[in-house]
Amino acid sequence: MPLSEFALIQRYFSALGAGDHIDLSVGDDCAVLRLAGGERLATSVDTLVSGVHFPADSFPEDIGYRAVATAASDLAAMGARPLGMTCALTLPDAEELWLHAFSQGLAQAAAELELPLVGGDTTRGPLTVTVQVLGSLPAGAALVRGGAQVGDRLYVSGTLGDAAAGLAILNGEWCPEPEYGEYLVRRFHRPSARIRLGQRLLGSATAAIDVSDGLLADVAHLASASGVRVCVDHLALPVSEALQLACSDAQQRLRWALTGGDDYELCFTFPSDQAPAQGTLIGRVEAGEGIYCDADLQGAEGYQHF
Amino acid sequence: MPLSEFALIQRYFSALGAGDHIDLSVGDDCAVLRLAGGERLATSVDTLVSGVHFPADSFPEDIGYRAVATAASDLAAMGARPLGMTCALTLPDAEELWLHAFSQGLAQAAAELELPLVGGDTTRGPLTVTVQVLGSLPAGAALVRGGAQVGDRLYVSGTLGDAAAGLAILNGEWCPEPEYGEYLVRRFHRPSARIRLGQRLLGSATAAIDVSDGLLADVAHLASASGVRVCVDHLALPVSEALQLACSDAQQRLRWALTGGDDYELCFTFPSDQAPAQGTLIGRVEAGEGIYCDADLQGAEGYQHF
Repeated sequence: MPLSEFALIQRYFSALGAGDHIDLSVGDDCAVLRLAGGERLATSVDTLVSGVHFPADSFPEDIGYRAVATAASDLAAMGARPLGMTCALTLPDAEELWLHAFSQGLAQAAAELELPLVGGDTTRGPLTVTVQVLGSLPAGAALVRGGAQVGDRLYVSGTLGDAAAGLAILNGEWCPEPEYGEYLVRRFHRPSARIRLGQRLLGSATAAIDVSDGLLADVAHLASASGVRVCVDHLALPVSEALQLACSDAQQRLRWALTGGDDYELCFTFPSDQAPAQGTLIGRVEAGEGIYCDADLQGAEGYQHF
Repeated sequence: MPLSEFALIQRYFSALGAGDHIDLSVGDDCAVLRLAGGERLATSVDTLVSGVHFPADSFPEDIGYRAVATAASDLAAMGARPLGMTCALTLPDAEELWLHAFSQGLAQAAAELELPLVGGDTTRGPLTVTVQVLGSLPAGAALVRGGAQVGDRLYVSGTLGDAAAGLAILNGEWCPEPEYGEYLVRRFHRPSARIRLGQRLLGSATAAIDVSDGLLADVAHLASASGVRVCVDHLALPVSEALQLACSDAQQRLRWALTGGDDYELCFTFPSDQAPAQGTLIGRVEAGEGIYCDADLQGAEGYQHF
């Protein structure tokens, strides 16, 4: 019985998360717990499975870096200040060289994102990395998915489609000029968690989500949580120079930008009478439901984990 | 290169956890983070891999329950008040019956331990369950491993060896009378996280650890963290009536009690002029290092994950 990840979570787990001290539970980028001093704790967990979320032959440094960055991206999408993280590492054997390299990648991301590693667990089994991030939010403020208002504008940070193009290279499906290919592959292995941007957007953006499943899929979550319809202008999507030069097929570029996951950029809505300090305008919020995109593209439903 | 889990963590990951707001990092039962209001956040993560930490044919209800209880046990060992948890679930396919049953076990443990499920991730891969627990501690108080003083007495809650005996039954290595066997198997699948006891011990016990790797192994961690030597009196170990009646081999019972992991009881030290409200006196703290146990037992080093 093929159920989407979202339907599964909704059906079996969302009822288990209620409590007086819980502001937000399963279903947004982070959970938000109210602490005694009024401060809020934001937390999120992400698992990367070898061969599913990254190629089995990835360098351990890249696996470590990416595991932290993808989890930290959820803190960014809430506007939270990083506090720390834990890492649960399941690996087939305790190979010292592998562990050394993995810890180097982890350390680099930890330093860049100011996320000290405060705990962990190592177990034997098929290679799986689970990173849990912890962050703090001031009382009453969080960049949730459900705040978009009719009339708002839709923005996205950075560029879209690079990571999906990089993954196509890693999977041997595409072979562009090495000078561009290297950049795109790096965008897959070393995504930027937009922690600083998220904190800047706190209190000004009306809603936010990080682009992990693909722009259309993630904007659909935002639209659904906000009870609005979001229109995406495919001509406005920011595409990197590397991707433009590497791939002459405009349809393919558009497919990656709209449905390729793994970019970990922030997508957010802003009142139409204000402009964010950063980001590209790519759409608008209307009354209704769902998303509308004027692109003529088949199979553009966004990546789902199940 | 076979390195123990502890050596691995120490070597590669313990340096990544420093920060002004971090009271305790990698190496105790939980990490402790200082929050703005003075309150402390305790957090810990535990992974259970199918076929490694539980038999692959376990009932999904039991897997869900046990995943929560084993992670919550670390909150108990710090004396923390439960706030919530996240669950990262990797599974080969999204089978609805399995998920329903798993969520039932998770829900039962969540209700008993007052640990609402506030977030999660579901991914496809070999069955692996990672639970991260969050708890709170008042400023300046935590049941750490490193506080045992020379002259203190050593106590343990509940009974020891039941879960290891239950696992031997599950693995087909032993087949006692069903009326006892059922109890022992249940002690493996449904361990009691001693959350209430941990909170009661906060401020009175000098050190604490939960028995997950085996009594000797865990007491050795406590001794090492405290810079003391701990003597364990094997004649004083609490053994359940079920285990005594089911197993007539006193050596085997002792081996399970000393080295069998998975009991998730609390082992703690108390000043000799006071008595805890709960627990069995099983030893004393002396000057020196390591542990001493007067039992004549071969292979009694406690279970290690690597």
